[in-house]
Amino acid sequence: MKARSEPALSLGSLDETELLDLEGRYCSWGDTVHYAKQLNFFTEAKGSYLYDRKGTGYLDLQMWYSAANFGYRNERLNTALKRQIDTLPQLACQYLHEERVLLAAKLAQRIEQSLGVKGRIHFNVGGASAVEDAMKIVRNHTGRNHSFAFMGGYHGRTLGATAITSSYRYREHYGHFSDRANFIPYPYCFRCHLDKKPETCGLACLRQFEKLFESEYYSVVNPKNNQSEYGAFFIEPVQATGGYIVPPFTYFKELKKVLDRYGILLVADEIQMGFFRTGKFMAIEHFDVVPDVIVFGKAMTNGLNPISGIWAREELITPELFPPGSTHSTFSSNTLGTAVALEALKMMEEGDYENLVNEKGAYFLAGLRKLQTRYPGIIGNVDGLGLALRLEVCKADGITPDRELVDRIFAEGLSGTLVARGRNYGLVLDIGGYYKNVITIAPSFTITQEEMDLGFDLLDQLFQRCIEK
Amino acid sequence: MKARSEPALSLGSLDETELLDLEGRYCSWGDTVHYAKQLNFFTEAKGSYLYDRKGTGYLDLQMWYSAANFGYRNERLNTALKRQIDTLPQLACQYLHEERVLLAAKLAQRIEQSLGVKGRIHFNVGGASAVEDAMKIVRNHTGRNHSFAFMGGYHGRTLGATAITSSYRYREHYGHFSDRANFIPYPYCFRCHLDKKPETCGLACLRQFEKLFESEYYSVVNPKNNQSEYGAFFIEPVQATGGYIVPPFTYFKELKKVLDRYGILLVADEIQMGFFRTGKFMAIEHFDVVPDVIVFGKAMTNGLNPISGIWAREELITPELFPPGSTHSTFSSNTLGTAVALEALKMMEEGDYENLVNEKGAYFLAGLRKLQTRYPGIIGNVDGLGLALRLEVCKADGITPDRELVDRIFAEGLSGTLVARGRNYGLVLDIGGYYKNVITIAPSFTITQEEMDLGFDLLDQLFQRCIEK
Amino acid sequence: MKARSEPALSLGSLDETELLDLEGRYCSWGDTVHYAKQLNFFTEAKGSYLYDRKGTGYLDLQMWYSAANFGYRNERLNTALKRQIDTLPQLACQYLHEERVLLAAKLAQRIEQSLGVKGRIHFNVGGASAVEDAMKIVRNHTGRNHSFAFMGGYHGRTLGATAITSSYRYREHYGHFSDRANFIPYPYCFRCHLDKKPETCGLACLRQFEKLFESEYYSVVNPKNNQSEYGAFFIEPVQATGGYIVPPFTYFKELKKVLDRYGILLVADEIQMGFFRTGKFMAIEHFDVVPDVIVFGKAMTNGLNPISGIWAREELITPELFPPGSTHSTFSSNTLGTAVALEALKMMEEGDYENLVNEKGAYFLAGLRKLQTRYPGIIGNVDGLGLALRLEVCKADGITPDRELVDRIFAEGLSGTLVARGRNYGLVLDIGGYYKNVITIAPSFTITQEEMDLGFDLLDQLFQRCIEK
Amino acid sequence: MKARSEPALSLGSLDETELLDLEGRYCSWGDTVHYAKQLNFFTEAKGSYLYDRKGTGYLDLQMWYSAANFGYRNERLNTALKRQIDTLPQLACQYLHEERVLLAAKLAQRIEQSLGVKGRIHFNVGGASAVEDAMKIVRNHTGRNHSFAFMGGYHGRTLGATAITSSYRYREHYGHFSDRANFIPYPYCFRCHLDKKPETCGLACLRQFEKLFESEYYSVVNPKNNQSEYGAFFIEPVQATGGYIVPPFTYFKELKKVLDRYGILLVADEIQMGFFRTGKFMAIEHFDVVPDVIVFGKAMTNGLNPISGIWAREELITPELFPPGSTHSTFSSNTLGTAVALEALKMMEEGDYENLVNEKGAYFLAGLRKLQTRYPGIIGNVDGLGLALRLEVCKADGITPDRELVDRIFAEGLSGTLVARGRNYGLVLDIGGYYKNVITIAPSFTITQEEMDLGFDLLDQLFQRCIEK
Repeated sequence: MKARSEPALSLGSLDETELLDLEGRYCSWGDTVHYAKQLNFFTEAKGSYLYDRKGTGYLDLQMWYSAANFGYRNERLNTALKRQIDTLPQLACQYLHEERVLLAAKLAQRIEQSLGVKGRIHFNVGGASAVEDAMKIVRNHTGRNHSFAFMGGYHGRTLGATAITSSYRYREHYGHFSDRANFIPYPYCFRCHLDKKPETCGLACLRQFEKLFESEYYSVVNPKNNQSEYGAFFIEPVQATGGYIVPPFTYFKELKKVLDRYGILLVADEIQMGFFRTGKFMAIEHFDVVPDVIVFGKAMTNGLNPISGIWAREELITPELFPPGSTHSTFSSNTLGTAVALEALKMMEEGDYENLVNEKGAYFLAGLRKLQTRYPGIIGNVDGLGLALRLEVCKADGITPDRELVDRIFAEGLSGTLVARGRNYGLVLDIGGYYKNVITIAPSFTITQEEMDLGFDLLDQLFQRCIEK
Repeated sequence: MKARSEPALSLGSLDETELLDLEGRYCSWGDTVHYAKQLNFFTEAKGSYLYDRKGTGYLDLQMWYSAANFGYRNERLNTALKRQIDTLPQLACQYLHEERVLLAAKLAQRIEQSLGVKGRIHFNVGGASAVEDAMKIVRNHTGRNHSFAFMGGYHGRTLGATAITSSYRYREHYGHFSDRANFIPYPYCFRCHLDKKPETCGLACLRQFEKLFESEYYSVVNPKNNQSEYGAFFIEPVQATGGYIVPPFTYFKELKKVLDRYGILLVADEIQMGFFRTGKFMAIEHFDVVPDVIVFGKAMTNGLNPISGIWAREELITPELFPPGSTHSTFSSNTLGTAVALEALKMMEEGDYENLVNEKGAYFLAGLRKLQTRYPGIIGNVDGLGLALRLEVCKADGITPDRELVDRIFAEGLSGTLVARGRNYGLVLDIGGYYKNVITIAPSFTITQEEMDLGFDLLDQLFQRCIEK
Repeated sequence: MKARSEPALSLGSLDETELLDLEGRYCSWGDTVHYAKQLNFFTEAKGSYLYDRKGTGYLDLQMWYSAANFGYRNERLNTALKRQIDTLPQLACQYLHEERVLLAAKLAQRIEQSLGVKGRIHFNVGGASAVEDAMKIVRNHTGRNHSFAFMGGYHGRTLGATAITSSYRYREHYGHFSDRANFIPYPYCFRCHLDKKPETCGLACLRQFEKLFESEYYSVVNPKNNQSEYGAFFIEPVQATGGYIVPPFTYFKELKKVLDRYGILLVADEIQMGFFRTGKFMAIEHFDVVPDVIVFGKAMTNGLNPISGIWAREELITPELFPPGSTHSTFSSNTLGTAVALEALKMMEEGDYENLVNEKGAYFLAGLRKLQTRYPGIIGNVDGLGLALRLEVCKADGITPDRELVDRIFAEGLSGTLVARGRNYGLVLDIGGYYKNVITIAPSFTITQEEMDLGFDLLDQLFQRCIEK
Repeated sequence: MKARSEPALSLGSLDETELLDLEGRYCSWGDTVHYAKQLNFFTEAKGSYLYDRKGTGYLDLQMWYSAANFGYRNERLNTALKRQIDTLPQLACQYLHEERVLLAAKLAQRIEQSLGVKGRIHFNVGGASAVEDAMKIVRNHTGRNHSFAFMGGYHGRTLGATAITSSYRYREHYGHFSDRANFIPYPYCFRCHLDKKPETCGLACLRQFEKLFESEYYSVVNPKNNQSEYGAFFIEPVQATGGYIVPPFTYFKELKKVLDRYGILLVADEIQMGFFRTGKFMAIEHFDVVPDVIVFGKAMTNGLNPISGIWAREELITPELFPPGSTHSTFSSNTLGTAVALEALKMMEEGDYENLVNEKGAYFLAGLRKLQTRYPGIIGNVDGLGLALRLEVCKADGITPDRELVDRIFAEGLSGTLVARGRNYGLVLDIGGYYKNVITIAPSFTITQEEMDLGFDLLDQLFQRCIEK
């Protein structure tokens, strides 16, 4: 059946053309690889850089959507992983191992310190699966399937997570979603849904939401008994895929007051922003509010293992309410993932990441603002929290999204043909936003000032090249 | 907030009592750990053994539910993992790396060789997420949310996978399941749903299913146009959690004939049985039938990474039908997972696992049958395919499930107090079955004859000890 | 816009061709009129007869699917209707009128007498809407959306009722049904789902159902706490559209025992069989079982008003549990409907309909059996309860459904060309059954022996004419 | 079982106390009767009046929520009903009768004249069932279950209609609603959701809705192909239960433009406002827009029969798309209902109801405005279209809803103790609105100027009495 000319599939024996031919025949194109027209192979990573087969370095300003916060091939974490490989690399998750317990304890204690509330940790693999665990906690406690979530929000691509993820494109081909969330406008002040200014709006969008609870005819509550049709509001404290949008600092606190009146839980999805991306252990800590459930993943192993998890307030997750067998998965608390995460937590304890991230973030934001002055209008908005930064690309009017320009910048960055300090460079960016016109920036926490300066230089080159086109 | 006496959470500094105290306070009990009354910590694994903190070896006859088929701490696979850690341990899955392409090509070519059909591979992490990807393929192609699945079947614990997983207990606390499958009796001949004998039944259970399509009033089809309400039938070729049940060898072929008449897809969930557990690369190969989608995971990295995936027939997954952005996840084709899986595939190519598994399986089955003669009635049924073996524990009548006895055997095996060859041993078993009275056995492919003999000895001891109780 | 030749739309001015032309342009064909190729207009009705525009009488053996049990244009009931028209023909249902209260009291007392259980009446219009009220009672009490219902069962065509109606054809074009029932084989002994004989089966089909509750893996229950995924089982005590199928007399009593164990309610849909069609006030009274909810409609006004209703056990429908505003509809307890129904109830009290129906039923059944002997095989099955009778038409083998023959018989009956006693006659029949090969017979309770004899004669003629074709 | 003292249940033999005792024991309290503390029995109706058992007349300003538009006990319509009773009072709806065809033709022609579009009529009984038929048309055509509907909107109480009815209270106890509509703020300018003024808002609420289609992240559309998650927008052209709210006259035309871009159908629910309540045959005719489906009921028989129906554009309801068997109900095109409706249509053709209703409406509105000047603030808003009028009762600030006052007015009106012209009167009102503080007024089309003046007088008395309390 296999044609005679089929190449031997051994590492290092095929060139990129041959590999791409195989990719075209045997790989699903259903993931995000083929968003790009030009496909890039990478062979090595270190610190803030990816390297292609020719050895060209690509400065990465996105770090796997914030999964590799501590730098690619981080020595300390790699060592922790190898140590576990050499002792207990496999163990069915129905048995215990020390790292698992210590990791859960460390996470819960850390959150208790920040938020003042006791809770427990439940592990899983992959962010979406942890989101589904949060849904189980909510349904178990409230008995309700319906949820609020934000326009612009992203929570994963399992069917359950898709139901609370705003993009209709993600649901379009997959039948009827019976638990489709009620999507509420996010406080995205640069493009205010109500055409207000944040200085004077008085959180008008929140008041709009609050108004829904005034009468049964607004569809969400029975004001006679304050019973609501909704079990939870799923939020990203800083919207990630939506374009690294930082909300007004009082928003969530006010939101929680509304939700509490009706027994609606607040679930904070910290998968992308957790573990110091925004300069706090969890991004929600910026907002003076205690969520009921926190979902985390990505950076907890610096990308070395898909382990994820949730924290829930004790009263939602006691052994009585959430008893043995409530949910599980084969790899949920796997030994490799817990070992690396435990080491990562220790690193976070030992280093002052709050300061580090905020200082580097301030420097980076300043650089972006400077860049903005060179491209007025075109860089319509620059903002950020910690090392989660945004640069919104517009037409000359400073507001109309310019998706085409961002697409060219993205592709050109990946061409590896930028030049600085006498060498070729690539620049790895990510595109987000409601109109796919936002460059979302999440550099490694290990990025140096020199690398940031290089980043500004390369960004500048990209704007120059691509605007001219 | 943290009480003064809170212990330092560093590796190796706490004894089991202290760890259990932390576990009791900070860990969710919602997974399967607390099914057991006595909790076991393990610290090392090698080959067919797990080791506890005292150094006692536990012969593992379940190998992480068939995730660690090639033995714990397999040298070759561990080395492959470390090699990747040292080069490209992280890479956003929207970019390509060589191992990913080679792995997909190898998998698709291997399946094409066995089944004669072209297809493509889509990766994800965790079995349930891959099951959800299969659901997306089905919904996209058929436009239908409703599915058939088997009583006794297990496909995972995300909300979508739970809807097609038979156990109601998994859905009980999580609200309304709008896509709940229509569950059909599995051909579990030892406990025939129709009280027939397999020798003479003429696949009566399949005829029952087929009958549903005779009239619109049987609820599933419009016979005027052969349109059905169902998009797919999700099967496990050998039911796993259901108790390692091997169906009649003609069953699935006949089933597929029925499904094809109505455009209902056949999805084979090979998460537990794939990669030679039953003596074939995929278990479905035993049954002379070509499924439309195959889901795999667990053993593909020997448990070193949660990577999973689906294979779908080309016509269901072409780039036109399943275009870029159809679905994705952060860790889907992660470099660590693909690298180990690629090495594992090479091992499977180089070794003759079909023979190896069948020979060891035959030896193990013979041993179990011998054991059965010592406990007539009590061991009501012994069966197996390759190294997927079952031992169904009953009351003296040979049929009434004896869950209590199995529970005692399981716990006693984990007590680490069995004695053989002058040493203490533990025995790691797993319990499955509709009545939780089946010992499901999945030894390492590296198990030796000596180890199997030890296993028979330990099992015998357990039956003796526990029946006497 | 209206073409000049458009006819004036006044009563009596158009011939059938012109009317059919209008019908072809302005009427939806989506209902059941166009099942027939030849369309019949009727202009008058009296007793057991419909009359067409030419004055030909059609003996009606179906009486509007048992809605006009007391004969067309029943003097007494028509008079009651007119009396109400002349006093209080309209009244918003939020106000009270005497007939409404008396009717509810009479119904509830009558059911209490038969079943020994107190309950209340809630009115609505149209059978399907009453079925939906029953669903509300069930959901309110059990908190569960999922239901069991029977293959072959019919409960109406609102979306909710369609979800528990077996025919997939009714759902096919209307999207995803999230509350689709779990359809269980009805005890249709002539075509036993399990190929058993009723004399020896030991209610095998019921045992099959009961078995589903033995293990959580059969998908419907958590045996640890007896919680089920299902809130109710919706039944027709004698399946109507399914082909007037009378179940074994012990079936429902045994079924209820199973349901009670798991808190699953039994809802008896008596819309077609209620009000003495089967010789009892409610058909369920034959079966020595007390349902939790009864749904009724059709014959309660002899077809003069669509009023319908439910009876529910007191503990399911107390004002506390089902408080004001739980549900309503504009015409629910309308004055015209309640007035006629009250008179009909009085008629049922005053006449001995149990005897009357059973005697006429016995005579009719004997006539059908005699007819069967003239067409052996072809009349495969004859059965009945009271005046609900069935005649199943088969191929010569006595079992293969012969839908074509039944279609010819039906059409020929409506041709109005049968001849008896020197005059032309038509015969109005109805077709039911899983294979649309059952003549379901529901004569008027006022039918005379002479009319029944005429019916046998006409049926005989039809078989002769149509078999010869 | 029945206690000896149980009264004989014959008409006229019981006093109100005895009747209320029966009502308390045998009637469900789940409908709207027990919203009131004091229950009223009525025994006769004529013209604009209801009469209680003592003979007191109650001027009815609500006419059964606009079901009895042509006056209670309208001679002409009663006669038409009796004529049908005496000829063909019953006929299975699968056969044809002349009135049915003529009625459909008249309705479709009338709508074609107004809207310029061909269509067909499909009958049912009860408004909610017709709404469900509209849902079937939508799902069949678009393949989508999800709908938009308005906050404040009401479409019925079957489960399907409840899913698109705004009040959460109606869903609260009935489980999960998988097809719950996405509820959009209605243009209720007196209480603008966006705190704008209608003179200057530029239809801001519509622009808010339109904005949802700008990006996939607003959750409802894929802008790449203009596919939307929604099949239809269900509207009431003048919101009825919501408080007889008249929208800006350009609103629906602009809305339809948005919907058309995405293939979303517009369904106009005219159940309460159709048949000249607002001065047009259908209320939608005021708004210069052609809906895709119209739902009607209530007044089409002046409340003498629950017949209802839908009109759909030809291309949505051709026999090919909506073939025989698509849906039906026993009483759908019943002879009594069609006969009365046909006569009612003739009345509407013969009389100039557009003028009549507008003139009486203008007089009534003027009277209400005058009343408003006497209770400034307290009568916060008066508005109307034709004879659909509203009077919104507020606190002295002119905006805060005063539900308690309205409740007292309503109850006092029903006490029958108002005095005018030397006699006792009652006044029948209805309460609507998001905050249940709106008196919704729908007088009979036969109301005289004298009766209207009496109405103003009685209303004035009520305000005086009840404000003083």
